[in-house]
Parts: sequence; C-alpha cells; structure tokens
Amino acid sequence: MPTADETAALVRAGDVRASARLMRDLDDARPGAVDVMKRLYPHTGRAYVLGITGNPGAGKSTVVDALIDYYRKAGKRVGVVAVDPSSPFSGGAILGDRIRMQRHATDDGVFIRSLATRGHLGGLSRSTSDVVAVLDAMGFDVVIVETVGVGQDEVDVVSQAETAVVVTVPGLGDEIQAIKAGILEIADVLVVNKSDREGADRTVRDLTHMLELRPHEAEPVEIVRTVATMGKGIDELAKACERHRERGARAPEAEPAAGANGPTSERRRRRALATVREHVLDTMRRAVDETLAARGELVERVATRALDPYSAADELVRAITRGRADE
Amino acid sequence: MPTADETAALVRAGDVRASARLMRDLDDARPGAVDVMKRLYPHTGRAYVLGITGNPGAGKSTVVDALIDYYRKAGKRVGVVAVDPSSPFSGGAILGDRIRMQRHATDDGVFIRSLATRGHLGGLSRSTSDVVAVLDAMGFDVVIVETVGVGQDEVDVVSQAETAVVVTVPGLGDEIQAIKAGILEIADVLVVNKSDREGADRTVRDLTHMLELRPHEAEPVEIVRTVATMGKGIDELAKACERHRERGARAPEAEPAAGANGPTSERRRRRALATVREHVLDTMRRAVDETLAARGELVERVATRALDPYSAADELVRAITRGRADE
Repeated sequence: MPTADETAALVRAGDVRASARLMRDLDDARPGAVDVMKRLYPHTGRAYVLGITGNPGAGKSTVVDALIDYYRKAGKRVGVVAVDPSSPFSGGAILGDRIRMQRHATDDGVFIRSLATRGHLGGLSRSTSDVVAVLDAMGFDVVIVETVGVGQDEVDVVSQAETAVVVTVPGLGDEIQAIKAGILEIADVLVVNKSDREGADRTVRDLTHMLELRPHEAEPVEIVRTVATMGKGIDELAKACERHRERGARAPEAEPAAGANGPTSERRRRRALATVREHVLDTMRRAVDETLAARGELVERVATRALDPYSAADELVRAITRGRADE
Repeated sequence: MPTADETAALVRAGDVRASARLMRDLDDARPGAVDVMKRLYPHTGRAYVLGITGNPGAGKSTVVDALIDYYRKAGKRVGVVAVDPSSPFSGGAILGDRIRMQRHATDDGVFIRSLATRGHLGGLSRSTSDVVAVLDAMGFDVVIVETVGVGQDEVDVVSQAETAVVVTVPGLGDEIQAIKAGILEIADVLVVNKSDREGADRTVRDLTHMLELRPHEAEPVEIVRTVATMGKGIDELAKACERHRERGARAPEAEPAAGANGPTSERRRRRALATVREHVLDTMRRAVDETLAARGELVERVATRALDPYSAADELVRAITRGRADE
C-alpha cells in the first residue's frame, strides 16, 4: 500500500493507474482516499472545467467529441467525466461511451471516466467534483463534465463547472419553452447543434428572445450554431467558452485564483458551498445507514406499525449525533 | 391555530382544506405537522397503495385516469399523488395534471396532489410517503402514486408502493432491453399499453422471455395488455393488481397488518426502512444547511483555496453532531 504522499505524487505526475485507483477508492469511500485528496487540493484549480448538458438527442456526445479533437489539436490534454445517473429507462449511454473510449484509447492526452450514481441518492455531485479534482491534479488542461441524462441532478453538476454549455437542436418546438425554467439560469454558452436542419434560424431567434427577457444586469450568453458531426462551429464554440472564461477572470470582483484565470468570486463561492455541502451530506448519509443497520429493531417496529416513522426518525437522529459527538 | 389533535381529527374526517394545509405544512417542514402525523399514523395502513411508472410516452396518465374511473365505478374513493421531480427538460406534466384535475374537480371521491421536489435533492420519497399517509388517514380506499418523469428517484418512489405497475408500449425496440436493468426488479404487474399497435405481440413475448430469465423463486409478474384511451384491459389490470395484493396477504411470512390485507412482511420492512431513512436524512439535510449558513467563513476559505473542502467538511460534521448532541 503506497502512502498518501506517494499516491499524491503519482497522481500529480499523471500516473493513470494510481489515479484510476484513487477514483475507485473515493467511490468506495475509503478514508485514505480523502487524505490523498487533501494533499492534492493545493495543486488543483488550474484546469478549465467545462460542463455540457442539454436535451436528449441534441448530440451532446458528438459535441464533446468534436471539442476533444479541437483541444487535442491545440496541444491541450483533455479529461472527460461522463455523468450518467443510470436511469433505468435509457441504456444507450454506456455503448456510446465505449465507442468513444475506443476512439481515444491510444491517445494518452485524453482520459475518460464514466460516473454512475450506483444507487446512492445525491452522491453524484460529490463523485463528480472528486473526479474533476483528480483530473485537475493530474495536469489535464481541460476537464469536460458531460451529462448523459437530463435530470435536476445533472443540471446541478453542470452548473458547478466554470463554463456551463447547454446544447439544444432545432425543431423541438414547445420544448424550447420547457428548457426555459431551470436551464437558462445555468447556461453560459448556448449551442444550437444540427443547425443545418430546418428551423435553426427560428431556434436561434427564440433563444435570443428568451435571453433578452432576462434582467438587465444578467451576464451575456453567446449562442453558437454547430453541426458537430461535421466539426462545424466547434472552433467558434471553444472561443465563446474562452471568452466566457476571460470575462470571469476580468470581472471586478474576481480574486486571484491559485491557477491562471479563475471564475468570478461569486461563482467560486457557490461552487465551494456545493462541494462542501455534498461532502458533509455524504458523511451524514453514511452515518445514517450505519445507524439504521445497527438499529434494525426500530425499523422492525415501524414495519409492524408498533412505532410511527416520525418517532423512529427522532430516535435515530439522536443516536447518530450522540454517537458522533462522542468520537 | 388548531391543535395537533384537532387537525388530526379533521383529516380523519376527510376534511379537504385541513388535509391540504397539513400537506403544505409537511412540505415546509413545520414541526407541528409532524406532531399531527404521529397522531394519524395508527389510522393509516388501510389504503391500497398502487405505484405506476414507465417509459415516457407510454401513456401512464391515461392508464391512471382509466384506473380512477374503474375504482370510482366500484364505489372506491381514490387519492392520486403525481410525482414530478420537475426536470428542467420536460414541461408537459403540469398541463396534463390540470386537465385531469378539471375532469375530476366535481368528484369529491377523487383527490389529486402534485408533488415536485422544489430543488431539495432526495426529499421526494419523504414527501411522497407523507402525502400517501395523509390520503390514507383521510380514508381513501386506493392511493395511486404516479411518476411523471423517469429517473431513479421515481423508481425508488414507486418501488415503495404495495403493488408497483410498470407501463410500456410496443415498438420501443431495443429500449425494452434498457428497461430490464432497474425495472423488472420492481415491477409487480407489467402493462403493455397501446396494445392495438403493431408489435404488441412481440413486446409481450419479449417481456415474458425476460421474466423467465429471472431466478426460479422470483414472485410471479402478470403482463396485461391495455388500450387505456378506450378503457380496454383496465378491468384486467385492476384484477391483476388485486391478485398481486392477495398473494402478498396470503404469503406465509405475512404478518397481520393494521388494516385488511397487508403486503408481505419483507416488502413492509423494506418500505419502513426507506421511510425512516428518508425522515432521518431530511432532518440531517436541514441541520447541514443551517450549519453551512452559520459557518459562511469556512465556505469562503474553501472558495479562496485557503482550505480544502475535505477538511472543511470534517469540521462541519463535528459542528453538526456536537450542536445536536447538546440539545
């Protein structure tokens, strides 16, 4: 067993095996893994973290693929986190991922990691930020967080990226309206993919109109047209992202980051809050499950209706906090 | 302000205003609401709780509508909980719900309540079980929990019902394969809706085959064909559900429930565990958010990279457990 210092050194040197093992250990919540992360933390914050989400069928993976090519040609090393909360109703993700992995398998400037929630609710953000931090420490210049699904969890994950890209396509009609709710607030760059299709102009116009309805002081959001399968518009997309990143770095409230360009301090604060919150919740979830396992008789009494679940919960909360406070 | 005893009495008498207010208070986590629930708990467990989920576009709402009609004709009172974790990518749910509410607006034997997560991750199961318990205490004979979306959260919610119905349609091709993963394990009854469409026979055959691949000792699962828009097959569906319910009541390990027929004790235990767990997690989540708000300087230090998020989380966990243990 290598020490935390040894593992941290291997990860910083970009060692793929040590890094993959660390990611697995973080997933399994081995305490030693967190010790490594504490050591790595000062060496993170340099990678440009790009989040990508959007409608199902909008061609997110193709856009990500084209971006990988773009950054590789620019000599950048790219890490990808494919987030798939494994909805039982969609099964295409893993296949697409495998094809992509094959394409880039011989390129050690690309590292792709798939993340599924494996059933434990709410742990997705934490896992994602852990993997992003490892890739960052490994020295990848760009880390792309791509969501496969379309739920609130994924939106939360993407909104923590430095630049959040939302991909849509022409012809969704009223669904554009549906996007409005949660998505416009998190989008830093909007992509109309498959823009050689009929209706692309209308989609761009609709999105422009929706952006105009936002408050006067809202951050500017660029709309980029792409045909990702042909690589069209990808340069422009990467440049729009870069401009967003620079606006963040130039913003008056921006504080000096450890790395080169940082996002605005407000966004950084939000991201820090979300990360810390997920870590705390994760610890509490584990404590809850341990206590539940140890107090099976309480659950049994609820199952036989001898006790109501509210009183059982009260007692368990007391047991958890008392137990931990004694540590 | 009515006392907890007064509110509990009103809810048990089926008072709609008092019950709706209680549901709202539970959502807002007012402490008094839990006191009411503790009083109501002994009077729950009588309603037949039916969960319905399935592919988007499979016609879940139409099936639910037809079931409402069926049960109403049989003289039963029906409560419906429409669970919609408000994915930012789908907007049709609210409209459909409103139409349905209008249809049944004049029928006081039907009570429909929509549930969205309102942003707080993981609280969906808890909210659902609270609302189901209130409807149960109000004296509804059947409570249908219908999911609008298709994520893991919804599957969890439906799997807690006494009978879990999964709705699919012909012609999804390989997606049937995709269903296999998480869904077959929770389905007690499978519905092939729109079964007048081409390919219905093949879908039934595929599902039958998949069921045969399960372990020998697996519970029987009936497959029912429906054309819900025409009311076809709904009697058969209701009867298949009833047979599942009776098998649970007859099962050797079944213990006497407070009400009439109960599910098997194993399922009841799982449900109790899930309910208690959600209540405890909900309390812990609130404690985490309060502590985070009070310790803004910790988050600030993480944002400026003066502190790593892992150490910050450690400190917050200590603060939470110490604080609560002192109470």
